[in-house]
Amino acid sequence: MNASPAFPLSEPSLQPLPSRHSCRVALLGFGTVGRAVATILQGDSFPQLHLEFIYNRRVDRKRVPWVPRDVRWTDDIEEVLASDADVVLELAGGIEPAYSWVKRALALGKSVVTANKKLIAAHGPELLELARGQGCRLEFGAAVAGGVPVLCGVSPGLSGDRLLKLCGILNGTCNFILHAMDTRSVSLAAALREAQQRGYAEAEPSDDVDGLDARAKLAILIRAGFHLQADPQQIATQSIWRVQPADFRYAHELGCTIRQVARAEIQTGTLLADVGPALVNASSPLGCARDNQNVLVTTGKYGGETVFAGAGAGGAPTAVAVVSDLLAIAQSQAAAVAGPTLTAVPVSYAFRCRHYVRVTPSHKLDAVNSLRGALTGKGIKLRRLLHHANPDDPQRSLALVTEECSTQAVDEALRQAREAGWLAEAPLRMPALMSS
Amino acid sequence: MNASPAFPLSEPSLQPLPSRHSCRVALLGFGTVGRAVATILQGDSFPQLHLEFIYNRRVDRKRVPWVPRDVRWTDDIEEVLASDADVVLELAGGIEPAYSWVKRALALGKSVVTANKKLIAAHGPELLELARGQGCRLEFGAAVAGGVPVLCGVSPGLSGDRLLKLCGILNGTCNFILHAMDTRSVSLAAALREAQQRGYAEAEPSDDVDGLDARAKLAILIRAGFHLQADPQQIATQSIWRVQPADFRYAHELGCTIRQVARAEIQTGTLLADVGPALVNASSPLGCARDNQNVLVTTGKYGGETVFAGAGAGGAPTAVAVVSDLLAIAQSQAAAVAGPTLTAVPVSYAFRCRHYVRVTPSHKLDAVNSLRGALTGKGIKLRRLLHHANPDDPQRSLALVTEECSTQAVDEALRQAREAGWLAEAPLRMPALMSS
Repeated sequence: MNASPAFPLSEPSLQPLPSRHSCRVALLGFGTVGRAVATILQGDSFPQLHLEFIYNRRVDRKRVPWVPRDVRWTDDIEEVLASDADVVLELAGGIEPAYSWVKRALALGKSVVTANKKLIAAHGPELLELARGQGCRLEFGAAVAGGVPVLCGVSPGLSGDRLLKLCGILNGTCNFILHAMDTRSVSLAAALREAQQRGYAEAEPSDDVDGLDARAKLAILIRAGFHLQADPQQIATQSIWRVQPADFRYAHELGCTIRQVARAEIQTGTLLADVGPALVNASSPLGCARDNQNVLVTTGKYGGETVFAGAGAGGAPTAVAVVSDLLAIAQSQAAAVAGPTLTAVPVSYAFRCRHYVRVTPSHKLDAVNSLRGALTGKGIKLRRLLHHANPDDPQRSLALVTEECSTQAVDEALRQAREAGWLAEAPLRMPALMSS
Repeated sequence: MNASPAFPLSEPSLQPLPSRHSCRVALLGFGTVGRAVATILQGDSFPQLHLEFIYNRRVDRKRVPWVPRDVRWTDDIEEVLASDADVVLELAGGIEPAYSWVKRALALGKSVVTANKKLIAAHGPELLELARGQGCRLEFGAAVAGGVPVLCGVSPGLSGDRLLKLCGILNGTCNFILHAMDTRSVSLAAALREAQQRGYAEAEPSDDVDGLDARAKLAILIRAGFHLQADPQQIATQSIWRVQPADFRYAHELGCTIRQVARAEIQTGTLLADVGPALVNASSPLGCARDNQNVLVTTGKYGGETVFAGAGAGGAPTAVAVVSDLLAIAQSQAAAVAGPTLTAVPVSYAFRCRHYVRVTPSHKLDAVNSLRGALTGKGIKLRRLLHHANPDDPQRSLALVTEECSTQAVDEALRQAREAGWLAEAPLRMPALMSS
């Protein structure tokens, strides 16, 4: 697995390379997320980010050939801290030694990016204060909901609102387990084994299953959204461990399903918060969360409900959040230099997709066959024909969905059909963005 | 309508007031959004934002009594530009005179916040460059998707990804119309009249209905997500005007519905983009958009699909985005002064909600009546009883959903039931977060 990058490398693309001052990065911890970050950084997408160190305990077993040769592998944290790295990327997890490393890095004036929810839940305010005093930055967008940008969505995104309620699915492992039980009627133990085989769940999954992971993330969200400091250990948790297939049968009877829900609310001057399994409507944003997705629903006094959803776990999505934080720091360092480079490009609408077409045939013809002929003549296949013998539709309209083809080809076929007098009025054509 | 604020004023709350240097704000345009911004600013939520001017043409007809007396009403733009306002809030809309005002304000070193998608789509890069050169800021989070923080979600939120696709519902008026046709089988003309009566749609709705509003927003998103500059006028649009009730009947037959979709994609080195009605799966994030909601689905190479959804239109949600931008500017001005004030608070889990309870009764008793008695004794009402005579459930479990009550009351009733020997094993209790 280590012999190749976490995913295929960047291919050349239309998107121009942002060019900025180089930012020297030291990565602490070369696990799943660390490897994914290194993969993104060694592509050509972000030349302003230069990976300088990879630190890990017993680093020799971690070495991979695809990391550029000028990256220095080390198991000596003192070497990293003494280096000229601008940003330390803490991906080791847990409180110690991460806490000491981050404090020392900040004290040395190095900015820090971390995905460590435990550390930030326990020591975030103190570390932020230290960073501020040193004129450097501490970013932790990856600590909550992995690739879903909920922290910047809440602040600055919704900082102009007065948030009243936060309700979310913040642990991908639990969601994978509960979604598997929901849709495939497997036992919790079997779903957990599958999550472990896929690398979602740790060998010791109790932090996930018992809600300790989600409550650390909830404490961070409470800080960002409510400006309140809640001790994570005071947040009541209930394990999903005792949820059985029978509970899903009962839930389905109610139009519901079961998810691990983390919620916080301001009610009559009190902060309420808990984490645990809950019944949610099957068609709600929380009920729709599949596999290891994360979701956050915020309720604001002025803006109402806002939903954020996406890939909340896994190496690559979490690495996206880490790299976004790195870019923000690199950008702030270079803020005065230049704005983003924008390339002006022409716009095409030659999407290839399925198309929906509704026509009103002229009376004299076998409309279906004529239209089918016009489409076939352009190489377009019919996927489905729809016809309503509807008494309130005197125009005898006819609709069809094509297989995937270009918009231009459909328009050309319809133009010909119209010119041939087969259509009583201009047809309606729309993309049919169906998943099946 | 003008006699009272756009919505009720802030009541005292647990949330502490952020304290920062004061930022003087001049508001240009006192329409729906302007009134909502003034309402938020005159509450006690954001003491660091001080509303100094309200400019409008023929301002006397706009005056309202609930705006603090020290706010100066004016119809003289020169007075505003010559003032000591730190930030100009451009809510007039359209290209001119907004373009001239914004350029002049930036040239004077004043930061600008705007909700004007047309202006930003046409002149964004030039104005950003001007702001950068002057050492001030131009923010336009409200220009796309109103209260849903999609712009900061895309960048910085997802800047560490390589975005490949953007697909969204960016016009609340069209969504209101199509959702009404979808669920209430009304004609487009009737739905449009309703949107106008509710104040969503303009008297001249063609910018919305024909897709010009959504394509300006799409051009801004293409810039933020792809770092590409697309001329909005090159983005193909199709009006929703010709969508008929018959199209919804056909769409429903396919498990689909119809929405106005704005999409952009990088395919083989080309930028594809268009706006118009499209079939979407009824259960997809786009298909689930109700009323005047907005949705954006991004697809990234590393992070996969991310969904942002919420209130995309309306005065109050748009005002949230405007005030969030104002706060970001105020914060950057005061960055060195102090961090956010966090209040440490105790956490309670005394949520009042419905509860799901599954018990395994001991053999000797009438379980239902015993349990009902225990719950009633705590003032808890039963909402629904669920029982599966399931052959693979030898434990004869029994589940119920209570009416809204406190978690503690349920736990206490269950503890008594257990101590009385009515339950064969520990019960499972979860919040039932059902909407009906």
